[in-house]
Amino acid sequence: MLAKNDDFARRNRHWLARRGVIALNIISAPGAGKTLLLERTLEALRRKVPCAVITGDQYTDNDARRLAGKGARVAQIETMSACHLDAGRIAKLLPKVVGPRVRLLFIENVGNLVCPAAFDLGEHAKIALLSVTEGEDKPEKYPALFIQAGAILLTKVDLLPHLQWDRGRCQESLRHVHPAARVMEVSARTGLGMDGWVQYLRGLARR
Amino acid sequence: MLAKNDDFARRNRHWLARRGVIALNIISAPGAGKTLLLERTLEALRRKVPCAVITGDQYTDNDARRLAGKGARVAQIETMSACHLDAGRIAKLLPKVVGPRVRLLFIENVGNLVCPAAFDLGEHAKIALLSVTEGEDKPEKYPALFIQAGAILLTKVDLLPHLQWDRGRCQESLRHVHPAARVMEVSARTGLGMDGWVQYLRGLARR
Repeated sequence: MLAKNDDFARRNRHWLARRGVIALNIISAPGAGKTLLLERTLEALRRKVPCAVITGDQYTDNDARRLAGKGARVAQIETMSACHLDAGRIAKLLPKVVGPRVRLLFIENVGNLVCPAAFDLGEHAKIALLSVTEGEDKPEKYPALFIQAGAILLTKVDLLPHLQWDRGRCQESLRHVHPAARVMEVSARTGLGMDGWVQYLRGLARR
Repeated sequence: MLAKNDDFARRNRHWLARRGVIALNIISAPGAGKTLLLERTLEALRRKVPCAVITGDQYTDNDARRLAGKGARVAQIETMSACHLDAGRIAKLLPKVVGPRVRLLFIENVGNLVCPAAFDLGEHAKIALLSVTEGEDKPEKYPALFIQAGAILLTKVDLLPHLQWDRGRCQESLRHVHPAARVMEVSARTGLGMDGWVQYLRGLARR
Protein backbone atom coordinates (compact mmCIF):
# COMPACT_ATOMS: atom_id res chain seq x y z
CA MET A 1 0.00 0.00 0.00
CA LEU A 2 2.84 2.37 0.89
CA ALA A 3 4.69 1.46 -2.34
CA LYS A 4 1.59 2.29 -4.40
CA ASN A 5 1.20 5.53 -2.46
CA ASP A 6 4.82 6.49 -3.10
CA ASP A 7 4.34 5.90 -6.81
CA PHE A 8 1.39 8.32 -6.87
CA ALA A 9 3.37 10.76 -4.72
CA ARG A 10 6.22 10.75 -7.25
CA ARG A 11 3.79 11.48 -10.05
CA ASN A 12 2.13 14.28 -8.07
CA ARG A 13 5.55 15.82 -7.38
CA HIS A 14 6.36 15.84 -11.12
CA TRP A 15 2.95 17.22 -12.01
CA LEU A 16 3.34 20.06 -9.52
CA ALA A 17 6.98 20.78 -10.45
CA ARG A 18 6.15 21.08 -14.17
CA ARG A 19 3.64 23.80 -13.26
CA GLY A 20 5.86 25.56 -10.73
CA VAL A 21 3.45 24.81 -7.87
CA ILE A 22 4.71 24.43 -4.27
CA ALA A 23 2.53 22.03 -2.24
CA LEU A 24 2.49 22.04 1.56
CA ASN A 25 1.07 19.13 3.55
CA ILE A 26 -0.35 20.59 6.78
CA ILE A 27 -0.51 18.07 9.62
CA SER A 28 -1.53 18.33 13.28
CA ALA A 29 -3.67 16.86 16.00
CA PRO A 30 -7.42 17.53 15.68
CA GLY A 31 -8.28 21.06 16.72
CA ALA A 32 -4.75 22.52 16.58
CA GLY A 33 -6.03 25.26 14.29
CA LYS A 34 -5.20 24.19 10.74
CA THR A 35 -8.37 25.59 9.23
CA LEU A 36 -8.28 28.96 10.99
CA LEU A 37 -4.60 29.33 10.04
CA LEU A 38 -5.54 28.64 6.40
CA GLU A 39 -8.45 31.09 6.52
CA ARG A 40 -6.14 33.88 7.67
CA THR A 41 -3.37 32.77 5.29
CA LEU A 42 -5.64 32.85 2.23
CA GLU A 43 -6.84 36.31 3.25
CA ALA A 44 -3.24 37.55 3.59
CA LEU A 45 -2.14 36.11 0.23
CA ARG A 46 -5.26 37.14 -1.70
CA ARG A 47 -4.39 39.02 -4.91
CA LYS A 48 -0.68 38.49 -4.12
CA VAL A 49 -0.08 34.73 -4.44
CA PRO A 50 -2.63 32.53 -6.24
CA CYS A 51 -3.48 29.58 -3.98
CA ALA A 52 -5.49 26.37 -3.99
CA VAL A 53 -6.59 24.10 -1.14
CA ILE A 54 -7.38 20.42 -0.68
CA THR A 55 -8.79 19.69 2.77
CA GLY A 56 -9.38 16.29 4.36
CA ASP A 57 -11.58 15.02 7.18
CA GLN A 58 -13.17 11.69 7.96
CA TYR A 59 -16.61 13.22 7.55
CA THR A 60 -18.25 16.61 6.77
CA ASP A 61 -17.33 19.40 4.37
CA ASN A 62 -17.21 21.92 7.24
CA ASP A 63 -13.65 22.99 6.45
CA ALA A 64 -14.20 23.49 2.72
CA ARG A 65 -17.15 25.72 3.56
CA ARG A 66 -15.02 27.76 5.99
CA LEU A 67 -12.29 28.19 3.37
CA ALA A 68 -14.60 29.11 0.49
CA GLY A 69 -14.90 32.66 -0.86
CA LYS A 70 -11.30 33.64 -0.14
CA GLY A 71 -10.06 33.68 -3.73
CA ALA A 72 -8.72 30.09 -3.78
CA ARG A 73 -10.27 26.98 -5.30
CA VAL A 74 -11.06 24.52 -2.47
CA ALA A 75 -11.79 20.78 -2.63
CA GLN A 76 -12.88 18.57 0.27
CA ILE A 77 -11.95 14.92 0.65
CA GLU A 78 -14.04 12.85 3.07
CA THR A 79 -11.81 9.89 3.95
CA MET A 80 -14.58 7.93 5.74
CA SER A 81 -12.74 5.18 7.61
CA ALA A 82 -9.21 6.29 6.63
CA CYS A 83 -7.12 8.20 9.15
CA HIS A 84 -4.99 10.11 6.62
CA LEU A 85 -4.93 11.41 3.04
CA ASP A 86 -3.10 9.38 0.41
CA ALA A 87 -1.35 10.40 -2.80
CA GLY A 88 -3.83 8.58 -5.05
CA ARG A 89 -6.76 10.69 -3.87
CA ILE A 90 -4.68 13.84 -4.28
CA ALA A 91 -3.67 12.83 -7.83
CA LYS A 92 -7.33 12.68 -8.89
CA LEU A 93 -8.05 16.18 -7.55
CA LEU A 94 -4.97 18.08 -8.76
CA PRO A 95 -6.26 18.91 -12.27
CA LYS A 96 -9.59 20.11 -10.83
CA VAL A 97 -8.17 22.28 -8.05
CA VAL A 98 -4.86 23.62 -9.33
CA GLY A 99 -5.63 26.26 -11.98
CA PRO A 100 -2.98 27.59 -14.40
CA ARG A 101 -1.87 30.55 -12.23
CA VAL A 102 -1.67 28.75 -8.86
CA ARG A 103 1.71 28.95 -7.07
CA LEU A 104 0.85 27.47 -3.64
CA LEU A 105 -1.25 24.39 -2.91
CA PHE A 106 -2.20 23.82 0.73
CA ILE A 107 -3.20 20.27 1.63
CA GLU A 108 -4.93 20.20 5.01
CA ASN A 109 -4.59 16.63 6.22
CA VAL A 110 -6.90 14.70 8.58
CA GLY A 111 -6.44 15.78 12.21
CA ASN A 112 -4.00 13.12 13.43
CA LEU A 113 -0.37 13.33 14.56
CA VAL A 114 0.44 9.73 13.68
CA CYS A 115 -0.83 8.24 10.42
CA PRO A 116 -0.59 11.20 7.99
CA ALA A 117 3.16 11.43 8.68
CA ALA A 118 3.69 8.05 6.97
CA PHE A 119 2.08 9.00 3.64
CA ASP A 120 4.00 11.17 1.16
CA LEU A 121 1.49 13.11 -0.96
CA GLY A 122 4.09 14.56 -3.34
CA GLU A 123 4.39 17.74 -1.30
CA HIS A 124 7.35 20.12 -1.19
CA ALA A 125 7.26 20.11 2.63
CA LYS A 126 5.23 18.95 5.59
CA ILE A 127 4.13 21.73 7.94
CA ALA A 128 3.51 20.55 11.50
CA LEU A 129 1.17 22.47 13.79
CA LEU A 130 1.40 22.01 17.54
CA SER A 131 -1.08 23.93 19.66
CA VAL A 132 0.38 25.22 22.92
CA THR A 133 -2.78 23.87 24.61
CA GLU A 134 -1.48 20.34 23.86
CA GLY A 135 1.46 20.65 26.24
CA GLU A 136 5.20 20.50 25.66
CA ASP A 137 6.14 16.86 25.04
CA LYS A 138 4.20 15.84 21.91
CA PRO A 139 7.28 15.99 19.60
CA GLU A 140 9.00 13.26 21.66
CA LYS A 141 5.84 11.20 21.96
CA TYR A 142 5.01 11.39 18.23
CA PRO A 143 8.37 12.02 16.56
CA ALA A 144 7.57 10.74 13.04
CA LEU A 145 5.89 13.97 11.98
CA PHE A 146 8.20 16.44 13.70
CA ILE A 147 11.39 14.79 12.37
CA GLN A 148 10.21 15.44 8.80
CA ALA A 149 8.63 18.87 9.19
CA GLY A 150 9.92 21.66 6.95
CA ALA A 151 8.46 24.11 9.44
CA ILE A 152 6.77 23.74 12.82
CA LEU A 153 4.11 26.23 13.88
CA LEU A 154 3.31 26.60 17.55
CA THR A 155 -0.30 27.72 17.36
CA LYS A 156 -2.79 29.47 19.71
CA VAL A 157 -0.01 31.41 21.45
CA ASP A 158 -2.63 34.06 22.39
CA LEU A 159 -3.67 31.56 25.10
CA LEU A 160 -0.21 31.42 26.73
CA PRO A 161 -1.12 33.82 29.57
CA HIS A 162 -3.81 31.32 30.63
CA LEU A 163 -1.70 28.14 30.41
CA GLN A 164 1.15 26.63 32.40
CA TRP A 165 3.19 26.10 29.23
CA ASP A 166 6.95 25.89 29.46
CA ARG A 167 8.63 27.22 26.27
CA GLY A 168 12.02 25.79 27.31
CA ARG A 169 10.62 22.27 27.75
CA CYS A 170 8.81 22.44 24.42
CA GLN A 171 11.94 23.65 22.60
CA GLU A 172 13.93 20.87 24.25
CA SER A 173 11.36 18.30 23.10
CA LEU A 174 11.55 19.70 19.53
CA ARG A 175 15.37 19.79 19.50
CA HIS A 176 15.40 16.22 20.73
CA VAL A 177 13.72 15.01 17.52
CA HIS A 178 14.70 17.75 15.03
CA PRO A 179 17.69 19.85 16.13
CA ALA A 180 17.49 22.19 13.10
CA ALA A 181 13.72 22.68 13.15
CA ARG A 182 12.36 25.97 11.84
CA VAL A 183 9.86 26.97 14.54
CA MET A 184 7.36 29.85 14.36
CA GLU A 185 4.95 30.94 17.06
CA VAL A 186 1.60 32.13 15.73
CA SER A 187 -1.92 33.05 16.73
CA ALA A 188 -4.28 33.02 13.77
CA ARG A 189 -6.94 34.56 16.00
CA THR A 190 -4.99 37.68 17.03
CA GLY A 191 -2.56 37.76 14.07
CA LEU A 192 0.50 37.43 16.29
CA GLY A 193 3.43 35.96 14.32
CA MET A 194 1.39 35.66 11.12
CA ASP A 195 3.71 38.08 9.26
CA GLY A 196 6.65 35.69 9.60
CA TRP A 197 4.56 32.76 8.37
CA VAL A 198 3.25 34.71 5.39
CA GLN A 199 6.80 35.88 4.53
CA TYR A 200 7.94 32.26 4.64
CA LEU A 201 5.16 31.33 2.19
CA ARG A 202 5.90 34.25 -0.16
CA GLY A 203 9.54 33.16 -0.14
CA LEU A 204 8.51 29.67 -1.24
CA ALA A 205 6.19 31.03 -3.94
CA ARG A 206 8.97 33.18 -5.44
CA ARG A 207 11.31 30.24 -5.99
CA MET B 1 -5.93 -8.32 12.28
CA LEU B 2 -9.20 -6.99 13.70
CA ALA B 3 -10.52 -10.55 14.17
CA LYS B 4 -7.40 -11.50 16.12
CA ASN B 5 -7.75 -8.33 18.18
CA ASP B 6 -11.40 -9.10 18.93
CA ASP B 7 -10.44 -12.56 20.11
CA PHE B 8 -7.94 -11.09 22.60
CA ALA B 9 -10.52 -8.46 23.62
CA ARG B 10 -13.03 -11.18 24.43
CA ARG B 11 -10.49 -12.97 26.57
CA ASN B 12 -9.54 -9.73 28.36
CA ARG B 13 -13.22 -9.05 29.07
CA HIS B 14 -13.64 -12.48 30.67
CA TRP B 15 -10.39 -12.14 32.64
CA LEU B 16 -11.53 -8.75 34.03
CA ALA B 17 -15.11 -9.88 34.71
CA ARG B 18 -13.96 -12.91 36.72
CA ARG B 19 -12.04 -10.53 39.00
CA GLY B 20 -14.78 -7.88 39.18
CA VAL B 21 -12.60 -5.28 37.50
CA ILE B 22 -14.14 -2.47 35.42
CA ALA B 23 -11.81 -1.33 32.60
CA LEU B 24 -12.18 2.06 30.92
CA ASN B 25 -10.51 2.84 27.58
CA ILE B 26 -9.71 6.56 27.58
CA ILE B 27 -9.42 8.03 24.09
CA SER B 28 -8.86 11.56 22.79
CA ALA B 29 -6.78 13.72 20.48
CA PRO B 30 -3.20 14.33 21.61
CA GLY B 31 -3.06 16.92 24.36
CA ALA B 32 -6.73 16.82 25.36
CA GLY B 33 -5.68 16.18 28.96
CA LYS B 34 -5.96 12.42 29.50
CA THR B 35 -2.92 12.21 31.76
CA LEU B 36 -3.75 15.20 33.96
CA LEU B 37 -7.32 13.90 34.33
CA LEU B 38 -5.91 10.53 35.45
CA GLU B 39 -3.45 12.18 37.87
CA ARG B 40 -6.31 13.99 39.60
CA THR B 41 -8.59 10.95 39.39
CA LEU B 42 -6.05 8.64 41.07
CA GLU B 43 -5.56 11.23 43.82
CA ALA B 44 -9.33 11.47 44.38
CA LEU B 45 -9.82 7.68 44.48
CA ARG B 46 -6.74 6.91 46.59
CA ARG B 47 -7.56 4.73 49.62
CA LYS B 48 -11.19 4.59 48.40
CA VAL B 49 -11.13 2.60 45.15
CA PRO B 50 -8.07 0.48 44.26
CA CYS B 51 -6.99 1.38 40.71
CA ALA B 52 -4.48 0.31 38.07
CA VAL B 53 -3.34 2.07 34.90
CA ILE B 54 -1.99 1.04 31.49
CA THR B 55 -0.87 4.03 29.44
CA GLY B 56 0.11 4.09 25.76
CA ASP B 57 2.19 6.41 23.62
CA GLN B 58 4.21 5.91 20.47
CA TYR B 59 7.38 6.78 22.38
CA THR B 60 8.50 7.84 25.91
CA ASP B 61 7.40 6.75 29.35
CA ASN B 62 6.56 10.35 30.30
CA ASP B 63 2.97 9.51 31.23
CA ALA B 64 3.82 6.51 33.41
CA ARG B 65 6.25 8.70 35.32
CA ARG B 66 3.58 11.38 35.80
CA LEU B 67 1.11 8.77 37.08
CA ALA B 68 3.52 6.99 39.45
CA GLY B 69 3.37 7.36 43.22
CA LYS B 70 -0.39 7.82 43.42
CA GLY B 71 -1.23 4.43 44.91
CA ALA B 72 -1.96 2.63 41.63
CA ARG B 73 0.25 0.22 39.70
CA VAL B 74 1.12 1.81 36.32
CA ALA B 75 2.48 0.18 33.15
CA GLN B 76 3.60 2.01 30.01
CA ILE B 77 3.25 0.63 26.48
CA GLU B 78 5.38 2.25 23.78
CA THR B 79 3.60 1.38 20.54
CA MET B 80 6.45 2.59 18.27
CA SER B 81 4.92 2.77 14.79
CA ALA B 82 1.38 1.80 15.86
CA CYS B 83 -1.27 4.50 16.20
CA HIS B 84 -3.40 2.72 18.82
CA LEU B 85 -3.30 0.08 21.57
CA ASP B 86 -4.47 -3.43 20.76
CA ALA B 87 -6.03 -6.14 22.92
CA GLY B 88 -3.06 -8.51 22.57
CA ARG B 89 -0.66 -6.08 24.22
CA ILE B 90 -3.18 -5.42 26.98
CA ALA B 91 -3.63 -9.18 27.57
CA LYS B 92 0.10 -9.56 28.27
CA LEU B 93 0.08 -6.78 30.86
CA LEU B 94 -3.14 -7.56 32.76
CA PRO B 95 -1.64 -10.10 35.23
CA LYS B 96 1.27 -7.74 35.98
CA VAL B 97 -0.77 -4.59 36.51
CA VAL B 98 -4.09 -5.71 37.94
CA GLY B 99 -3.49 -6.82 41.54
CA PRO B 100 -6.07 -8.83 43.54
CA ARG B 101 -7.86 -5.81 45.10
CA VAL B 102 -8.11 -3.64 41.97
CA ARG B 103 -11.64 -2.51 41.01
CA LEU B 104 -10.92 0.04 38.24
CA LEU B 105 -8.43 -0.26 35.39
CA PHE B 106 -7.78 2.87 33.36
CA ILE B 107 -6.31 2.32 29.90
CA GLU B 108 -4.97 5.59 28.50
CA ASN B 109 -4.82 5.09 24.75
CA VAL B 110 -2.49 6.73 22.21
CA GLY B 111 -3.49 10.34 21.49
CA ASN B 112 -5.57 9.88 18.35
CA LEU B 113 -9.29 10.37 17.65
CA VAL B 114 -9.39 7.93 14.76
CA CYS B 115 -7.55 4.60 15.03
CA PRO B 116 -8.05 3.67 18.72
CA ALA B 117 -11.83 3.76 18.23
CA ALA B 118 -11.62 0.69 15.95
CA PHE B 119 -9.84 -1.58 18.45
CA ASP B 120 -11.83 -3.18 21.28
CA LEU B 121 -9.47 -3.82 24.20
CA GLY B 122 -11.99 -5.74 26.30
CA GLU B 123 -13.04 -2.61 28.18
CA HIS B 124 -16.34 -2.01 29.94
CA ALA B 125 -16.65 1.40 28.24
CA LYS B 126 -14.78 3.87 26.09
CA ILE B 127 -14.40 7.32 27.62
CA ALA B 128 -13.96 10.09 25.04
CA LEU B 129 -12.22 13.33 25.97
CA LEU B 130 -12.77 16.43 23.86
CA SER B 131 -10.88 19.54 24.88
CA VAL B 132 -12.86 22.75 24.42
CA THR B 133 -9.72 24.20 22.77
CA GLU B 134 -10.34 21.82 19.84
CA GLY B 135 -13.50 23.58 18.75
CA GLU B 136 -17.07 22.38 18.48
CA ASP B 137 -17.35 20.12 15.44
CA LYS B 138 -14.96 17.22 16.12
CA PRO B 139 -17.75 14.72 16.97
CA GLU B 140 -19.20 15.10 13.47
CA LYS B 141 -15.80 15.00 11.81
CA TYR B 142 -14.62 11.91 13.74
CA PRO B 143 -17.85 10.14 14.71
CA ALA B 144 -16.49 6.60 15.22
CA LEU B 145 -15.26 7.31 18.74
CA PHE B 146 -18.12 9.52 19.93
CA ILE B 147 -20.84 7.10 18.73
CA GLN B 148 -19.41 4.40 21.01
CA ALA B 149 -18.47 6.47 24.05
CA GLY B 150 -19.97 5.45 27.40
CA ALA B 151 -19.20 8.96 28.62
CA ILE B 152 -17.83 12.08 26.95
CA LEU B 153 -15.74 14.52 28.97
CA LEU B 154 -15.41 18.09 27.74
CA THR B 155 -12.02 19.00 29.20
CA LYS B 156 -10.13 22.24 29.96
CA VAL B 157 -13.35 24.16 30.62
CA ASP B 158 -11.33 26.55 32.81
CA LEU B 159 -10.17 28.08 29.49
CA LEU B 160 -13.71 28.88 28.30
CA PRO B 161 -13.52 32.59 29.24
CA HIS B 162 -10.58 32.91 26.82
CA LEU B 163 -12.09 31.00 23.88
CA GLN B 164 -14.84 31.64 21.36
CA TRP B 165 -16.42 28.27 22.09
CA ASP B 166 -20.11 27.75 21.42
CA ARG B 167 -21.64 25.21 23.85
CA GLY B 168 -24.82 24.95 21.78
CA ARG B 169 -22.92 24.09 18.60
CA CYS B 170 -20.82 21.49 20.41
CA GLN B 171 -23.90 19.88 21.99
CA GLU B 172 -25.55 19.82 18.56
CA SER B 173 -22.50 18.12 17.06
CA LEU B 174 -22.55 15.52 19.87
CA ARG B 175 -26.30 14.91 19.60
CA HIS B 176 -25.88 14.47 15.86
CA VAL B 177 -23.69 11.38 16.40
CA HIS B 178 -24.86 10.17 19.85
CA PRO B 179 -28.25 11.55 20.92
CA ALA B 180 -28.11 9.89 24.36
CA ALA B 181 -24.50 10.76 25.16
CA ARG B 182 -23.58 11.24 28.81
CA VAL B 183 -21.57 14.46 28.75
CA MET B 184 -19.58 15.96 31.65
CA GLU B 185 -17.68 19.24 31.66
CA VAL B 186 -14.45 19.13 33.67
CA SER B 187 -11.25 20.99 34.38
CA ALA B 188 -8.63 18.74 35.93
CA ARG B 189 -6.52 21.84 36.56
CA THR B 190 -9.06 23.74 38.66
CA GLY B 191 -11.12 20.75 39.83
CA LEU B 192 -14.31 22.06 38.22
CA GLY B 193 -16.74 19.21 37.51
CA MET B 194 -14.34 16.58 38.88
CA ASP B 195 -16.82 15.56 41.61
CA GLY B 196 -19.35 14.36 39.03
CA TRP B 197 -16.69 12.36 37.20
CA VAL B 198 -15.41 10.76 40.40
CA GLN B 199 -19.00 9.91 41.44
CA TYR B 200 -19.53 8.26 38.07
CA LEU B 201 -16.39 6.15 38.62
CA ARG B 202 -17.36 5.20 42.19
CA GLY B 203 -20.76 4.14 40.85
CA LEU B 204 -19.05 1.84 38.33
CA ALA B 205 -16.72 0.41 40.99
CA ARG B 206 -19.66 -0.46 43.30
CA ARG B 207 -21.41 -2.60 40.69
